[in-house]
Amino acid sequence: MHHLGRRSSDAIPEIRIGYIGGGSQGWAHTLINDLAQCTEIAGTVALYDVDYEAARKNAELGTQVTSRADADGDWTFDAVRDLSAALSGADIVICSIQDPPAETFVHDIDLPKQYGIHQPVADTVGPGGILRSMRAIPQYREIAATIREQCPDAWVLNYTNPMTVCTRTLYEEFPEIKAIGLCHEVFQTQELFADLATTHLDGVDAVDSDEIHVTVKGINHFTWIDEARWRGRDLYRFLDAELAARKPLADFDPGSMADASYWTNNYRVAFDLYDRFGCFPAAGDRHLVEFIPWYLELDDLEELHRWGIRFTPSEARLPADGPTPTERYLSGAETFELTESGEEAVDIIRALLGLEPLETHLNYPNQGQVANLPDGAIVETNALLTGDAVTPLTAGSLPRSIRSLVLTHVHNQETLVKAGFDGDLDRAFRVFLSDPVVTLEREAAESLFIELVEREREFLDAWDGENATILET
Amino acid sequence: MHHLGRRSSDAIPEIRIGYIGGGSQGWAHTLINDLAQCTEIAGTVALYDVDYEAARKNAELGTQVTSRADADGDWTFDAVRDLSAALSGADIVICSIQDPPAETFVHDIDLPKQYGIHQPVADTVGPGGILRSMRAIPQYREIAATIREQCPDAWVLNYTNPMTVCTRTLYEEFPEIKAIGLCHEVFQTQELFADLATTHLDGVDAVDSDEIHVTVKGINHFTWIDEARWRGRDLYRFLDAELAARKPLADFDPGSMADASYWTNNYRVAFDLYDRFGCFPAAGDRHLVEFIPWYLELDDLEELHRWGIRFTPSEARLPADGPTPTERYLSGAETFELTESGEEAVDIIRALLGLEPLETHLNYPNQGQVANLPDGAIVETNALLTGDAVTPLTAGSLPRSIRSLVLTHVHNQETLVKAGFDGDLDRAFRVFLSDPVVTLEREAAESLFIELVEREREFLDAWDGENATILET
Amino acid sequence: MHHLGRRSSDAIPEIRIGYIGGGSQGWAHTLINDLAQCTEIAGTVALYDVDYEAARKNAELGTQVTSRADADGDWTFDAVRDLSAALSGADIVICSIQDPPAETFVHDIDLPKQYGIHQPVADTVGPGGILRSMRAIPQYREIAATIREQCPDAWVLNYTNPMTVCTRTLYEEFPEIKAIGLCHEVFQTQELFADLATTHLDGVDAVDSDEIHVTVKGINHFTWIDEARWRGRDLYRFLDAELAARKPLADFDPGSMADASYWTNNYRVAFDLYDRFGCFPAAGDRHLVEFIPWYLELDDLEELHRWGIRFTPSEARLPADGPTPTERYLSGAETFELTESGEEAVDIIRALLGLEPLETHLNYPNQGQVANLPDGAIVETNALLTGDAVTPLTAGSLPRSIRSLVLTHVHNQETLVKAGFDGDLDRAFRVFLSDPVVTLEREAAESLFIELVEREREFLDAWDGENATILET
Amino acid sequence: MHHLGRRSSDAIPEIRIGYIGGGSQGWAHTLINDLAQCTEIAGTVALYDVDYEAARKNAELGTQVTSRADADGDWTFDAVRDLSAALSGADIVICSIQDPPAETFVHDIDLPKQYGIHQPVADTVGPGGILRSMRAIPQYREIAATIREQCPDAWVLNYTNPMTVCTRTLYEEFPEIKAIGLCHEVFQTQELFADLATTHLDGVDAVDSDEIHVTVKGINHFTWIDEARWRGRDLYRFLDAELAARKPLADFDPGSMADASYWTNNYRVAFDLYDRFGCFPAAGDRHLVEFIPWYLELDDLEELHRWGIRFTPSEARLPADGPTPTERYLSGAETFELTESGEEAVDIIRALLGLEPLETHLNYPNQGQVANLPDGAIVETNALLTGDAVTPLTAGSLPRSIRSLVLTHVHNQETLVKAGFDGDLDRAFRVFLSDPVVTLEREAAESLFIELVEREREFLDAWDGENATILET
Repeated sequence: MHHLGRRSSDAIPEIRIGYIGGGSQGWAHTLINDLAQCTEIAGTVALYDVDYEAARKNAELGTQVTSRADADGDWTFDAVRDLSAALSGADIVICSIQDPPAETFVHDIDLPKQYGIHQPVADTVGPGGILRSMRAIPQYREIAATIREQCPDAWVLNYTNPMTVCTRTLYEEFPEIKAIGLCHEVFQTQELFADLATTHLDGVDAVDSDEIHVTVKGINHFTWIDEARWRGRDLYRFLDAELAARKPLADFDPGSMADASYWTNNYRVAFDLYDRFGCFPAAGDRHLVEFIPWYLELDDLEELHRWGIRFTPSEARLPADGPTPTERYLSGAETFELTESGEEAVDIIRALLGLEPLETHLNYPNQGQVANLPDGAIVETNALLTGDAVTPLTAGSLPRSIRSLVLTHVHNQETLVKAGFDGDLDRAFRVFLSDPVVTLEREAAESLFIELVEREREFLDAWDGENATILET
Repeated sequence: MHHLGRRSSDAIPEIRIGYIGGGSQGWAHTLINDLAQCTEIAGTVALYDVDYEAARKNAELGTQVTSRADADGDWTFDAVRDLSAALSGADIVICSIQDPPAETFVHDIDLPKQYGIHQPVADTVGPGGILRSMRAIPQYREIAATIREQCPDAWVLNYTNPMTVCTRTLYEEFPEIKAIGLCHEVFQTQELFADLATTHLDGVDAVDSDEIHVTVKGINHFTWIDEARWRGRDLYRFLDAELAARKPLADFDPGSMADASYWTNNYRVAFDLYDRFGCFPAAGDRHLVEFIPWYLELDDLEELHRWGIRFTPSEARLPADGPTPTERYLSGAETFELTESGEEAVDIIRALLGLEPLETHLNYPNQGQVANLPDGAIVETNALLTGDAVTPLTAGSLPRSIRSLVLTHVHNQETLVKAGFDGDLDRAFRVFLSDPVVTLEREAAESLFIELVEREREFLDAWDGENATILET
Repeated sequence: MHHLGRRSSDAIPEIRIGYIGGGSQGWAHTLINDLAQCTEIAGTVALYDVDYEAARKNAELGTQVTSRADADGDWTFDAVRDLSAALSGADIVICSIQDPPAETFVHDIDLPKQYGIHQPVADTVGPGGILRSMRAIPQYREIAATIREQCPDAWVLNYTNPMTVCTRTLYEEFPEIKAIGLCHEVFQTQELFADLATTHLDGVDAVDSDEIHVTVKGINHFTWIDEARWRGRDLYRFLDAELAARKPLADFDPGSMADASYWTNNYRVAFDLYDRFGCFPAAGDRHLVEFIPWYLELDDLEELHRWGIRFTPSEARLPADGPTPTERYLSGAETFELTESGEEAVDIIRALLGLEPLETHLNYPNQGQVANLPDGAIVETNALLTGDAVTPLTAGSLPRSIRSLVLTHVHNQETLVKAGFDGDLDRAFRVFLSDPVVTLEREAAESLFIELVEREREFLDAWDGENATILET
Repeated sequence: MHHLGRRSSDAIPEIRIGYIGGGSQGWAHTLINDLAQCTEIAGTVALYDVDYEAARKNAELGTQVTSRADADGDWTFDAVRDLSAALSGADIVICSIQDPPAETFVHDIDLPKQYGIHQPVADTVGPGGILRSMRAIPQYREIAATIREQCPDAWVLNYTNPMTVCTRTLYEEFPEIKAIGLCHEVFQTQELFADLATTHLDGVDAVDSDEIHVTVKGINHFTWIDEARWRGRDLYRFLDAELAARKPLADFDPGSMADASYWTNNYRVAFDLYDRFGCFPAAGDRHLVEFIPWYLELDDLEELHRWGIRFTPSEARLPADGPTPTERYLSGAETFELTESGEEAVDIIRALLGLEPLETHLNYPNQGQVANLPDGAIVETNALLTGDAVTPLTAGSLPRSIRSLVLTHVHNQETLVKAGFDGDLDRAFRVFLSDPVVTLEREAAESLFIELVEREREFLDAWDGENATILET
C-alpha cells in the first residue's frame, strides 16, 4: 500500500522555476497569481522570452504582486536574457511559447481558407497545425538540448501547442527528459459529466467536477472517454438519454452564432461522434472537427454554425492594439486581483515535490497506457503524480473504428517529427497530404503547402529547401 | 532442401472442380479454354449459377470445346441446380460471382456521382466498394458454410471483388477453409519492370514478365512493391529515371481521353505515389485513386482525364444487348478459338496437386508475411504453392506513411466484415464515413448511405434495418 | 484533475460481504477485528465453508466481538450452508480457501522431497504449486460461475494461493468478473526500503513503510522493483551499498537455522538476484528460490540454511491438535484483542465504495501495465483504487534477462489453466516438466507427477485420467 | 506469377569466393569436390585461415583436383595471408572456422563434466555452447566489419557453430549484411519422413528425401516441424503410429552403445518430445538434449545410452595424429575421389546468381517468418532463394509450450550477443545461470563459469575481466 494523503513537511522546499515564454500575457499572469497564494513552496522564477522587454515587465509585475499584503507566497521573479540562464539549475521548467501571429498564425488560417479549408483553431493538425509543428520542432529541439545541458533532472511542463508534437520533440532530442504536456480540454468534459450527475442522480444537488473520474485515452485534442464515475457511481450510462434530448444535433440557427464567442463549445460534434462511434470524445468541438473531414467540408461557413461552432478569423488571433495587460497592471490602469485560477500547475509542482499526490490527465510517451497505440507516441491519459514520479494509468485499448481515426494522426505526427529532425520537406508534405482535412485535389494540396512554406520561410530555417523535390516544380 | 522442379507423375490425377458463378461470360470461357489444353489433370467441372440457364449453356460450350480435335484435355462439364451439388466432393472450388448490375452496380456508381464522388471502378472501397461488400458478405458466408459441409478440404480460388472482404468472410465463417484470393493487377507491374529491364540493361532485348521477381505487400488493389529483380539484377533503381522521364505526370490532354478504353492504365498515379511516398504501388491507376482522396476531388471529370484515367460510366457496366458470348459460340455466330490465356488458375491447381511448384502473389490471411499489418487480415503478398500447401513469403514491413494509408482500409474492412456478421448497419456506416474518398459533409454522407441502402435493399436482407439508428432519422 | 482526498459521506453505506472459506482460523479473525473497528461502512458478512461448523463458530465469534463495548462497527455475521447463499446479492466477495493439508499439502511437500526437490513453501510453482493449481482450477471455476449467477457486479478479493492461477481461472470462466488478487509479500520490501531511508538519508529518523513508493512489476511471488522513493527521494541507489555490506550473502551458520522461524526472511536470495540481475525482487526468499533452480539444487538441507532460509517440513503444515483458535476464543480460553492488523482489505473496500482512494499493488489481468508480458496474464503491479474502479498503473517493461525467467512461469500458468479447463493431464505434465525446479531426469519427473496425481486423485476429479497418455505406462 | 524453373544462361558467370577457415579438413574438401563438378559457374576461391599452411595445402589440393580430367569445373584456388585479402571483391563468403580444440573445446566438455553436466555436442547452448559463443562473438564482429569494408554486397554463408550466435553477431555488427546460416540437421528429418512415406503409403517404393516438404520453425538445433508432405500427401499423420511402434523409447541396451558411433542418432528423444509436446523436433537427439534439462540429469552416463545417445568424450574432439587428410591427398597416400556430396552450398550459390531457384531451410533474422518469436532474432525456417534474394517463408507460430522452451534460448542468445559487444562478463554469467542444463547450485554455477573463463582466457581478450564483479570473489 502506498499512502495517498497529504504529507506534513517540516521545511518549505525552495525551488527554481525556469519559464520559457515568460513574456506571455495569459499564462504568466496565472502563474503569478497562483504562486502569490502558494505558501507550501518558495523560490525563484526566471522568466525568459524572445521579447525580453515583455519578460522584464512580467518580472516587475510578479515582484509587485508578491510583495502585496494579500499575497502570502515567498517568490522572486527575474527576467533573464538567454535560454541557458533561464534553465540553469531549474527544478521545474515551464514552456508556453508562441510565434508572432501576424507572420505565422494568420497565414496558417488564411491560406487554407482560400482553398476551402476553414480550421476553427488551426493549432494541432490540418494545414495550420502542420505548419505550426514545422516551426515548433526546431525550437523544441533547442529547448530539449538546453535542458540536457542545464537541468537534466528538472520536470518540464509544456503548455505549448501542438502539444503532441512539441512533447514528442523533447523526448526525441533528449530521451531521458522528464516532460509532461498539459492541456485543459478534458476539464470541460468532467464538467459535462458533473452536470449529468446532478440531472440524473436522485437527491444530488451539486457535484464538484474534480470529483468526476473519467478514463481518458487518445491523443491531445482527440482523446476519448469510455468510463465516467462519481463516487463509484456510473455516469456514462446517462449519455444516451442526453443524446436523445439534444437531437437533432446540428440545429443551431446559423445567424445566432454571429455574436457567439469564438470559443463557444456546445458538444454537438462530441455527441454526434458518440452517436456514430459509441465512445465520447473529450475535447471541444472546435478541436474535434479538425481531426476528421466531415464537419469542415463547407460550402459556406453557416454549415459550421449549425453545429454551434464559430470559425475564428485570423484577425481575432492578433494582439489588441494599445498597452498589453501587463503594462496596464503596471501603470495602474487595471488592478491585478488575486483569484482562484483553477489552473493546476502549482498542484502538479506540489505533487512532484512529494507534498500531495495528484491524479490528472496529461500527455506522455506511451509505455502501455493505451494498449493499442504505438509505444513511444505521445498519448493523453490519466496519470498519478507523486514525489519525483509521473506514472500513467492503464486505459486499455481504443475501439477499432476510433483507433483507426486516431492512428492516422499518430503516424502523421511521428513522421512529422522525424521529418523535422532531418529537415525533410518532402516527408512533411507526405504528412500534409495524408491529413484528413486536406481533402484537396493532389496539385491543389501541393500548391497550398508550397505557399505556406514560402510565406513562413523565415521560421522554417531548419528545413532543407534546397533538396526538397516538392519545391522543384 | 526442397526440390522445386516439376514432378513426373505416374497417373493423371482426376479431380472435381465446383464453379460458383458458372454462368459467367468471361472467366468461365477462360477456364474452358485452359482446361481444353491441360493434359496433366482430368476431371469434372460442376457449374453453378443463380442463372441456371447461363450455367447450362456454358456446360454445353465446355463439352463442345473439349470434344474438338484441337483439345487434348479430358474434362466433363455439368451444370447443377444448387450450390451444395456444385460443391459436393469438390477438390477445387472457383468463385466468380456478380449481382445483377442494373439493380446494384449502377447505383453504386451513379448515386455517389450525384454527391461528387466519381469512382472509376467502385468495386473495392469507397461508397461502391462498401455497398458491394455489404451485399457480398452474406453470400460468402453461405458459400463458406456450404464448403464446410460439402468439401471442407477443397482449395477455394476466389476471383470475386471486393477480393479482401470476400476472402476475409470465408475465413471468418469457416476458419479452417483453404481459400486464396486471386487478382491480376500485379502482373501489369511485372510487365512495367520487364520494360524497364529491356530499356535500361545493356544487351538485353526481351524479358519475360514472369521472370520478374517483385516483393509484393499490402492489400488487394492497394499493394506495394519495394524490390524488383530480373535474374538477380536490381530493376527498382531504374524507377527514378523513369519518373523523371514521365514528368509532368498529370499532363494528358483531357479531350484525347474521350476515346480511350475505359480500362486504360498509364501509371501516372502510380508514379506520382512513388514520387511522394518512395514506394511503388502495384495496381492500376483506376484502382489506386479510390484508396486516397487526392485524385477524386473533382470539379469536373477532365481533372481525372489529365492523369490518363477514364471514368467508366454506369452504362458501360451493363451487359450488351443481344445474345451473350456463350450463345454466340453455341450458335456458331462466333468461333471459340483456343488461345494461351495467360491466366494462372490451371497452374495453381497443378501446384496444389503437387505437380509443379509455383510462386505467385495472392490474397491470404496475414500470419506474419506483412510484419506491420494486423494478424488475420487478408493481405496481398507472394506465396509459394506446393502440393496441398500455400505458404506466404515474408515481405517485411510497409514504410510508416504507406502503412498508415493501408491501415485505414484494413481497419475498415475488418469492421465491415464484423458488422456484416452482426447485420449492424450503424457499424457499416462508421466504415462508410471513415472511407478516405467519402469527403462529404457529415449529413450528406448520411443521406448518400441511406439512399444506397434503400435502393439496394433487396440485396441487403441480412442487414438489420429495424434496429439501425442511422435509418431512424 | 481528479481529487484524491477522502470524501465526506452523508450516509454510511450498507454492504454485503460473501466470505468463501469463512471457517478459516487466520484471515477470518483479521476481518472480524478490522470490521469491528470500521465505522464508515456497515453490513453483513455471510461466511461459507466446506466445514460448516467452522464457519458457524466464526460467525458466533464475529457476533460476539462486534457486540463488545470496544467495538464501534455495525456488522452482522451469518454462517451459510451453500456457496450460492453466501454470494447472493454480495457487494464484496472474499476468497480464502484451503484443501485439507493432510491429504494434499503434505504430499505436495513430501513426495517431491523424495526426489530431491525441497520446496520451502510449495504453494505457487514447482511440483507443489502445480498440484495445488490443479486442485484449485475446478474450485475457482465453480466460484466464478456462482458469482456470475449470484452477484456479477461484486468486487472479488482473492487471498488464496496459487494467487496467479486462482485469479486467472476466475477471469477465464467469467471474463467480466471484477476480481483482484491480494498478497502481502511486497509490504516486506517496502519495509526494507524504509530501513534504507533511515540508514542512508541524513536527518531522517523514522519512515513509515506505507510512504515508500515502489514500482512493482512481475507475477505474484516473483515480482520485481526498479524504483523506490520516499517523498520524491530516490532510495533505490542505496541498494548497492547495502549489498556490499551484506556480502558474503550465503554465510548463515546452518546450525543456527535449526531454531529459526520457518517463515524467517533474510533477503539473501533477493540481494543475490539483485547482484546478478540488476533488479530487486519483491518477495521473500522462501518464495524466490522456487522460481529458479539455483538454490534448491541441494545435496543437503544445510545448503539452504546458508542462505538464511528454513525448509518448512510437511508436519508444520498440519493444524495443531486440540481446540482451534476460534474455539479457544469462544470458550474464553483466550481473549480476542482488538488490534491494528495492518491488513488492507477494509481500506480496499472503502476505496471501491468511493470513500478514499488507495494505491496498492495487486494481481490483475495485464492490459499494458507490464508492457512486455502477455496481455491477459495475471501480473502484479501497482494500481489505483477509486469508486468501483481498479486501474493498474503502467510499470514499463521488465529487463530482458528477468523477463525471460518470468515468462517461463507465465507460459506455464497460462497452459495450466487451459489444461485445467480441458481436464487435460498430459498438458499439465508438460507444465510440470517445464518447471525450472523440476530438474529431474525425464522418467523420474514422470514418476513423481504420476505419484502425486494418484495420491491426490480424489481432489482431481475434474481431470480426465481416462484419456491421459501419461497415465498409460 | 514468378517462374521457378531453371534459367538458360548465355554466359557462364565468373565469381569470387572468399573462404574463411580455408584450411579446414572437412568442409573445404567438399567444396573442392563440388566446384570441380560445377560447370555453370566459374571463378576463384581465396582460402584464408589462421593456419596459413593448412590453407595453402588446400589451395594446392584444389588446383590439383580441378585440373584433373574428370573435373569439368573451371576454378582457381589461392591461399591468402589475411582476412581482407580473402574478402576483397568477394561475391560469396563462406565461413567455417574453429578454435584449437585442445585449448578450448576440450575444456568446454571436461570442466562441466566435473560438475555433472555431460554435453554430447557442447557447441550451441549449455556451458560449452556459451563459452564457444563468447569466443566467437569478437571473431565474427571482425569478420562482419571486414565484409562491410571489402565486399558489402557479398552473400555470406556461415557454417560455424554456434550458428545462431555467429549469424546474429554478423547482423549486429553490420545490419545490411546479406548473411545466411546453414546447417544439415533438418535433412535427417526429411529422411525420416521419406521412410515414413515408403512405409505407410500404398504402392510407394522409394521417396527422394528432397521431395519432402516440411514446415520448419524454431532456432538452430532446436527447430520444430508441424507439417510434412510428399507430393501434396500428408505424412505427419504417420508419426503417431511410428511413435507407438517405437515405444518404449528409452530402451537401448546401455552396453551396446559402447561401440556405437559418437554421432549416432536414433530419434528417441525426438519422439519423446513429440509424445509430450505434440510437435516434432528437427534436430538430432544429441543436440536436442542440450536445450532442456531432462535428459542430461545423469547419475551415470548409461542413462544417456538408454536413449540411444553416446556422449562424445573430449579426446574424440582432437585431430588424429599424423598427416592431415589434405596432406594424405597431396602425398598420394589417399586418392581424392569425386563424389556426389549432397552438400547444397553450390546449389545455393547457383540460386543466388539467378540460375535456379531453391527452397531450403536456413537461419536468418526473424521478420515475421516465426510469428511469435522476437523480431530480429536468428530463427531457422524455410526460405526461397532466387537471384540475389533470400525470402523466408512464413511458418506461423510455435505452440505455447514449445515457444516457452525456445524463447528461453532466444533471450539468452540475444543477451549473450549484447554482452559480447560490451565485453560484459557479468551479463554473460546471467545467461550461463539461466541456461536450462545448468542445474547447478548457485555457487557451483559461479565456480564453473569462472574456471571456464580462466582456462580459456587467451581466447576471451575482448571481454572485460577488470570490471566483472563475478571475478571479484
